[in-house]
Amino acid sequence: MGWAIALHGGAGDIPRSLPLERRETREAAIRHCLQIGVDALKAHRSPLDVVEVVVRELENHPHFNAGRGSVLTSNGTVEMEACIMDGNTKRCGAVSGLITVKNPISLARLVMEKTPHIYLGFDGAEAFAREQGVEMVDSTHFITPENIERLKQAKKANRVQLDYTQPIKKVDEIPVSDGDSQIGTVGCVAVDGHGNLATATSTGGFVNKMVGRIGDTPIVGAGTYANNFCAVSATGKGEAIIRGTIARDVAALMEYKGLSLKDAAKYVVEGAPSGTTGLIAVSAKGEVTMPLNTSGMYRACATEDGYTEMAIWPGETCD
Amino acid sequence: MGWAIALHGGAGDIPRSLPLERRETREAAIRHCLQIGVDALKAHRSPLDVVEVVVRELENHPHFNAGRGSVLTSNGTVEMEACIMDGNTKRCGAVSGLITVKNPISLARLVMEKTPHIYLGFDGAEAFAREQGVEMVDSTHFITPENIERLKQAKKANRVQLDYTQPIKKVDEIPVSDGDSQIGTVGCVAVDGHGNLATATSTGGFVNKMVGRIGDTPIVGAGTYANNFCAVSATGKGEAIIRGTIARDVAALMEYKGLSLKDAAKYVVEGAPSGTTGLIAVSAKGEVTMPLNTSGMYRACATEDGYTEMAIWPGETCD
Repeated sequence: MGWAIALHGGAGDIPRSLPLERRETREAAIRHCLQIGVDALKAHRSPLDVVEVVVRELENHPHFNAGRGSVLTSNGTVEMEACIMDGNTKRCGAVSGLITVKNPISLARLVMEKTPHIYLGFDGAEAFAREQGVEMVDSTHFITPENIERLKQAKKANRVQLDYTQPIKKVDEIPVSDGDSQIGTVGCVAVDGHGNLATATSTGGFVNKMVGRIGDTPIVGAGTYANNFCAVSATGKGEAIIRGTIARDVAALMEYKGLSLKDAAKYVVEGAPSGTTGLIAVSAKGEVTMPLNTSGMYRACATEDGYTEMAIWPGETCD
Repeated sequence: MGWAIALHGGAGDIPRSLPLERRETREAAIRHCLQIGVDALKAHRSPLDVVEVVVRELENHPHFNAGRGSVLTSNGTVEMEACIMDGNTKRCGAVSGLITVKNPISLARLVMEKTPHIYLGFDGAEAFAREQGVEMVDSTHFITPENIERLKQAKKANRVQLDYTQPIKKVDEIPVSDGDSQIGTVGCVAVDGHGNLATATSTGGFVNKMVGRIGDTPIVGAGTYANNFCAVSATGKGEAIIRGTIARDVAALMEYKGLSLKDAAKYVVEGAPSGTTGLIAVSAKGEVTMPLNTSGMYRACATEDGYTEMAIWPGETCD
């Protein structure tokens, strides 16, 4: 037993030819955010605080698809989503359709703590944000030149999300400019030395997504889930993650089938359609796992006994 | 093996002193909708068609909390939600925040069939509805005198959903005029003689809910879930159903722990906080179960071998 933390910056099609500059920028951010989380755990902050603080930092970074770096809808707007969950109490909060909230994960936590509900979306969530006085910014804050270019390329290459008659598989064929326009979502899971678990996930969704599209991130049990066995944050193709109830299934396999964290996570990720799913998870015992079936996932972890690692492609970590 | 169907018209606090007229109106509607489903199964329509048709009929009835009879938000508006799922393929569709769509369940099916996404909410979902040409009606269609009165009483009795500082438990204390303002949600599950499963759930949510509140109904794995083991539709207090990943857990207990449908559903409902949860479920083998831990749930079922039952309170059926 000891504390443990893992975080991700999105799973998807990340070619090994990824430009070095982009890779280094993201690796530096991941390292920085991991250190923030480790310091918070060492300072005995609650896992719920830890995952919120780490995800806020990832949301503020323009090169991850959440908060500041959120990708654009087919209308060129951002619609951000986030979810946070406490393992012991199963209390949770979620938001969708945010357009001006700087840190969606903190609004998700306020939904959890200050309303009788779990999940608020769109205008109602924005109104709640105003009432709570969270930091709000002009929507242009989120619209980066890189994301304008990504949307342009996605629209040029494949208009599937505007053409409802196209089959679903076409979505996977949207080419990308720099090998990572489809990656998305940031997340963090943490456990303290007493087995208290928490998870947080935040995303801008899918490039060229339809306005109003809700993905797996805010869905408790799909992109985000924690109970007293483990905390999980998933990333990848949201629709596959929803169908697979990915995050809940990791916990359910531990709870109902007695699998270890690592075996449960492996079983779930291997059972998901290839190229769709990555996840990070920690157990109440302080174990960590970060399996993926996509070509890459930005990820890092650390445990109290001094173990730490950071990776992008498969086979680079002990998973 | 044979076909089976179950439907519900909401679980919640339904006192045995329920006025006879209201009870008879709902019982007649439940009986009518069950017959529609049975006829459709006998005519060899797919379970997906069957659950959609039955839920449409329930949505059109002003005395259930879905479609026409949807309860009102704190602003006096309706915001409807629905979800549909096919067991074998795990294809699914969901909608939230609908204000003018006459039959939310049919829009959920169109999201499943005509978009690359699973879930659309609010303005984007309304825009998609207009593009698809589904029947849309003025929002006054949904605002019944009974629901205006329910909102008035809820506001008078307890302003919790407008006062974020109140503790969550206060929500449960909203008194009701006729003993059923908190009931909600309609749903149907069906299986054909080949083990093809489907589920559909539709709701107006919670009386006096915050604008933008998303409940368990559209959350795959919470209020609605089907795979090749079973199809489940849950109803009750949405926040508890989300935390408990109720619908997925019934299937997960069959899949990972080898429980029968009945034992899995019983385990899940007994494990949920008392007074929060009811569900209907059918298995691939044609079994049916309808457990509840609330004071009542409008429910009915039928199977190919001629068994049929309808009930409101606990202990009235073989569950």
